[in-house]
Amino acid sequence: MRSIAIGVVFALSFCFAQDSSDFKPASSNVLDAQYPKVDSNSRVLVRIMAPNASTVKLNFWSGPKMDMVKQADGSWTATTPPMAPGLHYYTINVDGAEVSDPGSTAYFGGGKWASAVEVPEAGADYYLPQNVPHGQVREIWYHSSVTGSWRHALVYLHPGYDASKTRYPVLYLQHGGGEDETGWIRQGKANFILDNLIASGSTKPMIVVMANGYASRAGYVVPDLSGKPFGSPGFLEVMQERMGAFEDDMTQVLIPFIDKTFRTIADRDHRAMAGLSMGGMQTFQVTFNHLDLFSYIGGFSGAMNVFARGNNSLDLNTAFHGAMADPYAFAKRVHLLWIGVGTDEPTRMKEGIEDLHASLEKAGIQHVFYESSGTSHEWQTWRRDLREFAPRLFQPVGQPSSVGHGK
Amino acid sequence: MRSIAIGVVFALSFCFAQDSSDFKPASSNVLDAQYPKVDSNSRVLVRIMAPNASTVKLNFWSGPKMDMVKQADGSWTATTPPMAPGLHYYTINVDGAEVSDPGSTAYFGGGKWASAVEVPEAGADYYLPQNVPHGQVREIWYHSSVTGSWRHALVYLHPGYDASKTRYPVLYLQHGGGEDETGWIRQGKANFILDNLIASGSTKPMIVVMANGYASRAGYVVPDLSGKPFGSPGFLEVMQERMGAFEDDMTQVLIPFIDKTFRTIADRDHRAMAGLSMGGMQTFQVTFNHLDLFSYIGGFSGAMNVFARGNNSLDLNTAFHGAMADPYAFAKRVHLLWIGVGTDEPTRMKEGIEDLHASLEKAGIQHVFYESSGTSHEWQTWRRDLREFAPRLFQPVGQPSSVGHGK
Repeated sequence: MRSIAIGVVFALSFCFAQDSSDFKPASSNVLDAQYPKVDSNSRVLVRIMAPNASTVKLNFWSGPKMDMVKQADGSWTATTPPMAPGLHYYTINVDGAEVSDPGSTAYFGGGKWASAVEVPEAGADYYLPQNVPHGQVREIWYHSSVTGSWRHALVYLHPGYDASKTRYPVLYLQHGGGEDETGWIRQGKANFILDNLIASGSTKPMIVVMANGYASRAGYVVPDLSGKPFGSPGFLEVMQERMGAFEDDMTQVLIPFIDKTFRTIADRDHRAMAGLSMGGMQTFQVTFNHLDLFSYIGGFSGAMNVFARGNNSLDLNTAFHGAMADPYAFAKRVHLLWIGVGTDEPTRMKEGIEDLHASLEKAGIQHVFYESSGTSHEWQTWRRDLREFAPRLFQPVGQPSSVGHGK
Repeated sequence: MRSIAIGVVFALSFCFAQDSSDFKPASSNVLDAQYPKVDSNSRVLVRIMAPNASTVKLNFWSGPKMDMVKQADGSWTATTPPMAPGLHYYTINVDGAEVSDPGSTAYFGGGKWASAVEVPEAGADYYLPQNVPHGQVREIWYHSSVTGSWRHALVYLHPGYDASKTRYPVLYLQHGGGEDETGWIRQGKANFILDNLIASGSTKPMIVVMANGYASRAGYVVPDLSGKPFGSPGFLEVMQERMGAFEDDMTQVLIPFIDKTFRTIADRDHRAMAGLSMGGMQTFQVTFNHLDLFSYIGGFSGAMNVFARGNNSLDLNTAFHGAMADPYAFAKRVHLLWIGVGTDEPTRMKEGIEDLHASLEKAGIQHVFYESSGTSHEWQTWRRDLREFAPRLFQPVGQPSSVGHGK
């Protein structure tokens, strides 16, 4: 009986905590939108007007999937359990139509302009605008001889860039599959992360280029993939074709354009590339195929071995043109190889990256393995990756092989 | 009988024209999205998956409102009559939920991230990226002592800015109600319009600043307007409060910040302001209250008299601190007063602006009245305004009073 009574007390206190009634509009909402709301327990309350709908469902892509409940005023609501901190993509399914929430800022993810809600992380202000000098983000357009089209990219310039005459190193920073070149600024808050890091003195002033990760060679006809699920074979073929086109566009057109347009230090010792998920795969492909151009490499939840391995194993002696066959030569040539993962990522992704880390360790390949505690295949993981990765770039001394943890 | 036969022939030929089957994905779609499509007759075919919906409606905000028809595969489709050229906002109503089309780029309009479809205009390439030098659009953040917050703005810098040491004039260019500072670039293509105008030599190189038109003074609590229709009394009060805060932020914080951050010519002879709709109202309010700061004024479908008039009449002798009481002095002081309107705008808007034009003519106030032929209260009107307005800015000779037409 005693244990039951304690159970009841616990349950009651949990209810009280849940009914704290301190829901506030999310910082990711559009101007004046009252919903979605987040409370101090990191629960999210979503609401949409759909007076004539039969079934409305809430779909957090890396989180809860819930039936929404119809209210007397024709709205539908759902409250999630406590969620991990960070920005969580979601859509709402109204009688079979998978749509965005009009109350949310639209973020480009999943190949469309989706909704997302920002769940604050207690004590974490490294990605918020602070009272420090702010860099600018420039939109640039360049004509690509590879794609035969005008292409759009974003470029972060640190706060001191305009007033100086100095040249700076460059980080190429790529979004994930289904996202675009706006992701690192809009979702990732990369500009604020870098503003804060640079202001603290921990990170070298740098130029950060965020390119559009999709490219098609001039004349290539994209097959109609409407109706096919994202990730099915047709998508993989398109992705491989596009990764090749992207590699050519980046190395033959974008990098020369950036080096011509901005005051860069245009050599491999002052050029880094990193990316998340698909952008991590692109980073491994581009950098290992062009080690004459890059010396810092970051994979944020990015699988290295998707394209390099046959039959589920990565042979480090032959992979990537044998770049890792000699660990000592590799460590001299590549100043930083970063492998990051969130501890709550889906098992398949997590194990793939952990296996890669283990393979690298076993082969004696110098690298940094970083685990983001309690986060999934989502932006909070990648914000933390950037926060830890950027200070290690373009520093005069080499980086030791180490294992990091953090939130 | 003969007239009936001719009618049938006409109907048939119309059907043939309608069934031209040359529908192509709109340029405003997200990557790979096959719908919406536009045909050579400027008809728009919209499609959304909603297999379990009872009623799906297509809602072009300044165009057709149509029932969509369910197809065997669970999608719903509708094809519009031929539409005017330009970018048309729309939403789709799925069983009472007014939502965006996942196939469309999201544009911030109507206070949310809405859909829009680009209907090409035959022969019009002035807002398309061409093989000319491209300027950059910079995102800037500044801390406002008026709002007590970080504010975001976009700044267009013409292609020659970085390589020169020269100082340049500035145009402040404002979006409409329900839109934000991204509107002139995303929807309006202002950067491409200016690239093309500057490349042609018709327009002076200039800096264009696009600020967020919503501001609230620090401590001001925005009333909950959820559920109230846009434009109802609560909105007007908020808008007036915000216009005052916006005026202070622009004149006390933003302009000094821009003059400090960029190589501007920081005097009234080299500073212009223009805006569309609500942005036109803001332009009139800010410029006429600060003629010490501005000498070029553009109202694109913007009512001048909403705040200046009582009882439905605008007394030019007293309005705006009597700035127009002396037409000769006004013409010497204000180098350009531009009043633009689309010939197909809603009657109330069109008549308000035509009345203003007539009042100015009668009072002998030098101005340019521009009518965009066949376009409504939409972006094609404002793209044309900008194309005609920008070449008249910062030119050495005064502008004659004239009436323009064009498409």
